Amino acid sequence: MLTQNQETTKSINWQPIIKEFIKVLGEKGVVQRKEELITYECDGLTSYKQRPPVAVLPRTTEQVSQIVKICNKYQVPFIARGSGTGLSGGALPTDNSVLIVTSLMRQILKIDLENQQAIVQPGVINSWVTQAVSGAGFYFAPDPSSQIICSIGGNIAENSGGVHCLKYGVTTNHVLGLKIVLPDGEIIDIGGQIPEMPGYDLTGVFVGSEGTLGIATEITLKILKAAESICVLLADFTSVEAAAASVSDIISAGIIPGGMEMMDNISINAVEDVVATNCYPRDAAAILLVEVDGLDVEVTVNKQKVSEVCLKNGARNITVASDPETRLKLWKGRKAAFAAAGHVSPDYYVQDGVIPRTQLPYVLKEIAALSNKFGYQIANVFHAGDGNLHPLILFDNAIPGELEKVEEVGGEILKLCVKVGGSISGEHGIGADKKCYMPDMFSDTDLETMQWVKQVFNPDNLANPGKIFPTPRTCGEAAKASLQNFPNVERF
Amino acid sequence: MLTQNQETTKSINWQPIIKEFIKVLGEKGVVQRKEELITYECDGLTSYKQRPPVAVLPRTTEQVSQIVKICNKYQVPFIARGSGTGLSGGALPTDNSVLIVTSLMRQILKIDLENQQAIVQPGVINSWVTQAVSGAGFYFAPDPSSQIICSIGGNIAENSGGVHCLKYGVTTNHVLGLKIVLPDGEIIDIGGQIPEMPGYDLTGVFVGSEGTLGIATEITLKILKAAESICVLLADFTSVEAAAASVSDIISAGIIPGGMEMMDNISINAVEDVVATNCYPRDAAAILLVEVDGLDVEVTVNKQKVSEVCLKNGARNITVASDPETRLKLWKGRKAAFAAAGHVSPDYYVQDGVIPRTQLPYVLKEIAALSNKFGYQIANVFHAGDGNLHPLILFDNAIPGELEKVEEVGGEILKLCVKVGGSISGEHGIGADKKCYMPDMFSDTDLETMQWVKQVFNPDNLANPGKIFPTPRTCGEAAKASLQNFPNVERF
Repeated sequence: MLTQNQETTKSINWQPIIKEFIKVLGEKGVVQRKEELITYECDGLTSYKQRPPVAVLPRTTEQVSQIVKICNKYQVPFIARGSGTGLSGGALPTDNSVLIVTSLMRQILKIDLENQQAIVQPGVINSWVTQAVSGAGFYFAPDPSSQIICSIGGNIAENSGGVHCLKYGVTTNHVLGLKIVLPDGEIIDIGGQIPEMPGYDLTGVFVGSEGTLGIATEITLKILKAAESICVLLADFTSVEAAAASVSDIISAGIIPGGMEMMDNISINAVEDVVATNCYPRDAAAILLVEVDGLDVEVTVNKQKVSEVCLKNGARNITVASDPETRLKLWKGRKAAFAAAGHVSPDYYVQDGVIPRTQLPYVLKEIAALSNKFGYQIANVFHAGDGNLHPLILFDNAIPGELEKVEEVGGEILKLCVKVGGSISGEHGIGADKKCYMPDMFSDTDLETMQWVKQVFNPDNLANPGKIFPTPRTCGEAAKASLQNFPNVERF
Repeated sequence: MLTQNQETTKSINWQPIIKEFIKVLGEKGVVQRKEELITYECDGLTSYKQRPPVAVLPRTTEQVSQIVKICNKYQVPFIARGSGTGLSGGALPTDNSVLIVTSLMRQILKIDLENQQAIVQPGVINSWVTQAVSGAGFYFAPDPSSQIICSIGGNIAENSGGVHCLKYGVTTNHVLGLKIVLPDGEIIDIGGQIPEMPGYDLTGVFVGSEGTLGIATEITLKILKAAESICVLLADFTSVEAAAASVSDIISAGIIPGGMEMMDNISINAVEDVVATNCYPRDAAAILLVEVDGLDVEVTVNKQKVSEVCLKNGARNITVASDPETRLKLWKGRKAAFAAAGHVSPDYYVQDGVIPRTQLPYVLKEIAALSNKFGYQIANVFHAGDGNLHPLILFDNAIPGELEKVEEVGGEILKLCVKVGGSISGEHGIGADKKCYMPDMFSDTDLETMQWVKQVFNPDNLANPGKIFPTPRTCGEAAKASLQNFPNVERF
């Protein structure tokens, strides 16, 4: 299907298409100049780059629908893009497609505190939602590290997680309803104002579908009441295994922390070098950051319990932060960890695998073994409570062939995750980056079933072609096909 | 599609089909005798009855797959049935279909306490899951009133709720993965052992699809750690509005009770007449049952807060039950409320609408007005915290024409729910009963999109035909078509 689209690439005459776009959006809503289009050549996964032929900036559902209908008329593919912070290349353009950028769709359309919901446009920045309701004592729970820049539309596409998703669930658990422009331009409403609706749960299918089923243009989000009390504990360990064991033991003790994050020695030092929190012990093998929230009395009891579990597992020290400033300081390092890795190493490649929590000690040991075997430093900084790993493989891309080797290490880690009953993606999505690993996780029939569903929404494969699904099936073949899909992709 | 199936009804030669069934299941696994088949002529919605031509009782996934393949070979529809406690006619047979009964698929296949999950067959009774893990301090959260008899497979089909779903979510929030026999007999695995998986969320689509997308044969459930402490409060009000206002105020105070149920005067008296809890004040206009759970300290604070809110709203009395026996006694009346209504009235018709919580006082007033207008007593007993209403319309079906009038009242209530932004089903499903109201809630495009998805899984419409979707669209037309779909349905 994609190949068909691409076969027509050479012959696409963009002029009439762009003329129609301008009729809908005005000159300013259509980006055609090459130097402006460079902004859009990649998302957060910078190892794939492709400048799109044209980008459009609609402001309303109706405009998105009209743009998509024009794309249908000329049978050109389109790709939606939010803030471009995605880490799996989900918003990577192709050389024959229109990039539909939602960054002018930034209105919070409605806030209904009584029913604890807000309706927003897809370009609204994640942290703006909390800002808009925090004065009244509410917040929006999913909080990716990129929350001050990533968009709600992107969160929907990738079903984003974040530090607080251990207790409160990832994006899909916080979306009540969606207005969607289907890949043929039709506008539909799915879900609604209440959590459970009859009929098939199309909202559930759409969230995490990485732009392949349409474009969400109005999103009804759940808003939560802020906890009475919050406390962050930093526990400092001399072994990674002890930190990992504490994670399981805390959950087994019946505590569900608001967040529970682990950082290893490499991450700690990277963060201290760059952000200088001066809170993280540079000689620790690993630290755990555990946030407990709830009633004052509940937090008092739970912080005591968490401390006991960590001490029993051999923690050297526990730092407790109850005031907002110290809490923020403790979290700051964690949130800046990816950026810090980028400062201490010329390049890094981040993976996003998930494992059953109880497999943490084993998998971390295996990752260490891979690090030794391949000779790359691997920093581990991740959502430990969810078993959602983010190994950062540090390397120097100036050395030819390194990226390929590093991707191989990343692949080994993902296969390890699948082997222990886990997943190749927790929150970053599959995108262009990981589709070749889908057959490691899903059978042919499973993948076919998903693609049947795709076919229903997106029969002409115009919405974000070449993402999620491997074609053909093996990784090597998929890699080759992937290059065909993105013929002009430049490796950075 | 269905009509096609039914056109062939007259000419179905069951003998070769049954012979093939017996080859798979043995004589005992195939029910053919008319007097035995009467068991299966309806589910909990007894106003529709249809004896199936044949019922089969498989024990394994492989057997279900073989049965379904035989159905495909002969192009006869099939309908899955669990314990038959459903309240929307989801398991109502047709006169040309095979009933696949899961009541011999009652094995708990695996319990993994470390990762807090259990794998069960679909015929496993809901409360057995909790029984199996409670010794170790765990439980399965969704708890329909019928939990001592309803099956997990049925819970999956209808996305069942229950008293504790306010805090912990309905069935879909507690299903990690499914092994499914597709409508063509193929076996696939969706979801897995960890909460978030890449690709489309097919588990989410399947849960609540009412048997129209296939049959779940192995279900991976989430198991929760039991709370340290539980306390149930019974608040007694002299006005329904005051009770309803307390519901909103409790949530606004930042408390999410484990459960929050309301019963009005009619329900209270029905329950006391039949179950004699001797706890419910017969002269109260309404009672609220509020369960708070968590840490000891948390429960102490929250029960205080709940009491204060109720007293502020004019509660006459608050009874607090902290010991398991008294708690059970307070809940017993609520769980027996439907059965009690069946004792105090010759018949009752129960609806299952959902409204935004803040609309409770308004909607309850309107229901009272409908009760006056049509001259039927309506008992209200429901999941107040979720805004999930269960009005029980009391009537005497011996009087000709009453059922039709009562269904009209039920329809008016559902339309009222939709008008205030709610839903026509919270947890009982659409089934055969409410499909004519789907267009009140969803646009043509929305319904078409769902049916595209159905088409993908169930292209020959062999899996549970005639359920969920109205064909044609208006209620009157659908009612007529419904009779065509179920030509031999006997009104009780």
